[in-house]
Amino acid sequence: MRATVLYAPGDVRIEDRPDPAITAPTDAIVRIAATCVCGSDLWAYRGVEAVERPTPMGHEYVGTVEAVGAGVTTIRPGQFVVGSFFASDNTCDICRAGYQSSCVHREYVGAGGAQAELLRVPLADGTLVATPEPPPADLVPSLLAASDVLGTGWFGAVAADVKPGRSVAVVGAGAGGALAVLAARHLGAERIIAMSRHPDRQKLALDYGATDIVTERGDDGVARVKDMTGGLGAHCVIEAVGTQESMLQAIRSTRPGGHVGYVGVAHGVALPGEELFYSHVHLHGGPAPVRRFLPGLIDLITTRIIDPGKVFDLTLPLDRVADGYAAMDERRAIKTLLSPSA
Amino acid sequence: MRATVLYAPGDVRIEDRPDPAITAPTDAIVRIAATCVCGSDLWAYRGVEAVERPTPMGHEYVGTVEAVGAGVTTIRPGQFVVGSFFASDNTCDICRAGYQSSCVHREYVGAGGAQAELLRVPLADGTLVATPEPPPADLVPSLLAASDVLGTGWFGAVAADVKPGRSVAVVGAGAGGALAVLAARHLGAERIIAMSRHPDRQKLALDYGATDIVTERGDDGVARVKDMTGGLGAHCVIEAVGTQESMLQAIRSTRPGGHVGYVGVAHGVALPGEELFYSHVHLHGGPAPVRRFLPGLIDLITTRIIDPGKVFDLTLPLDRVADGYAAMDERRAIKTLLSPSA
Repeated sequence: MRATVLYAPGDVRIEDRPDPAITAPTDAIVRIAATCVCGSDLWAYRGVEAVERPTPMGHEYVGTVEAVGAGVTTIRPGQFVVGSFFASDNTCDICRAGYQSSCVHREYVGAGGAQAELLRVPLADGTLVATPEPPPADLVPSLLAASDVLGTGWFGAVAADVKPGRSVAVVGAGAGGALAVLAARHLGAERIIAMSRHPDRQKLALDYGATDIVTERGDDGVARVKDMTGGLGAHCVIEAVGTQESMLQAIRSTRPGGHVGYVGVAHGVALPGEELFYSHVHLHGGPAPVRRFLPGLIDLITTRIIDPGKVFDLTLPLDRVADGYAAMDERRAIKTLLSPSA
Repeated sequence: MRATVLYAPGDVRIEDRPDPAITAPTDAIVRIAATCVCGSDLWAYRGVEAVERPTPMGHEYVGTVEAVGAGVTTIRPGQFVVGSFFASDNTCDICRAGYQSSCVHREYVGAGGAQAELLRVPLADGTLVATPEPPPADLVPSLLAASDVLGTGWFGAVAADVKPGRSVAVVGAGAGGALAVLAARHLGAERIIAMSRHPDRQKLALDYGATDIVTERGDDGVARVKDMTGGLGAHCVIEAVGTQESMLQAIRSTRPGGHVGYVGVAHGVALPGEELFYSHVHLHGGPAPVRRFLPGLIDLITTRIIDPGKVFDLTLPLDRVADGYAAMDERRAIKTLLSPSA
């Protein structure tokens, strides 16, 4: 099969690799209908994370089940499925509490590389969710978004305790931030402030329901959010970047007693304990337990209540994956969808 | 009046100072019936916090209202009152959300020094809570505890989301930790693991409802808590120390999706962002909004449902305050009550 491999920062290639095989009775093999490039893929592409060996890339996927192991009981070949980036049994105490991405049996699905024609998914029954029927082509991007970036934005909004009438600020309006705006709107937020300097990202945030744009960063951005919220800060702040600056911007934009939901994968962050102590914020986040939200998100998508697929502003055949990474790296695209069959 | 002043690390004295006067129409003057030494007072006494000038000490107090300003409408002279260490208007949006210790008009009551005969309390109507009637002498220690250490332990348990049936671990079983155990028991926790190496503190924790004692610290302590909780960690962990080691011990003792409530005043803490991200814990804490809990706690004390006053294992006349600090510093006492009238 054709598959994406990162060799070094900036050096991402399509190459022929062996088809994945079922290695455990709980596995499924999925033929990828659509996959994409994640903001978190750029950490390695940019050399912020070390690339120690040629690494299969990609962890977002939708597709059709091609085969299942003997122990798979609910997922069946032929089903169209949406998966998440961590495989989970969905039965342990941690899963039942809604934290499938910390399942006691979790495995990183992306280890096999979803930017490919085929993917092995461990713990298929606990990881994959089938759509009611094979979706029309125009819904595929939205279902693909559900497999990570929408689930992540949604978790950010839930972790930030977004509720009707609350004020919300979103730090970092990339694809994840834009979908956090969508989630906040759906959850009833009154005022949604998107913090971004980039016109294309501002437009996407406004399309999804942002009421205000703040272009300032750091303490200037914090001051603007406070100005907009009676001097207090927002009730709920979603952090969707993962840097020290963005985390502090999020904490400082939150009112005492408010909630920070952080979903940007943390890199080089050290939170000052004294400041956190006196901030009085709630802090929650981490790798989104996408599986918790998938059934509900699939329902919202297939009934066309939400349209998260708009985050994909570049669609390429899988063979042009390198162009897709470069476009995101250079901010020419917000998020790249890759089509293995094109 | 006689009042306590810290001159330098280890050098705490009683001296004559001017009686406090009403300086704002919302002030009250309280004649102190009982005050005490806080674990947080020891940070300066031990030189961990700088002592830049002679500093009046103490922020925990109960007593009788002696005078009120012209703008005070609900608190009256003659009432027996319990206060908290931050004055609050109890009407702003932050107070109404239950975060009175971050009130937009907050003032540190301890600035005047509660380890004294008299104390000026700003924003008296929003800060002080009167008991239904002057309490019998044997309830005074418990009411004094409510003014900080009980309120702090209670907030820790609430911030850690303690609920019926949950497992709880308490890192640091000093007075605050012991009262966090009491709070967790009252809130319905099933298993309460107190982490302490000191026999007197272990006994107090057991008296208040701890079901297990863990003497190991750091990663060994974490491993013991995991052993006791099906390998997962506790649902709820209360941190009542404030050091880097204790914060990491708390975070690592918590299961994914669980809650850390931290009330130890943070000193030199820097939380590693990556570890926090993948821990999946909820983090909340800070200076306890004691005022939120005071009416309920006073009710539980005056109806003799809880007995937090047992944390005071040393009672001294105010004139012997230096002995009280030394006893706590040398761990000969868990918490020292000071009586100005003795």
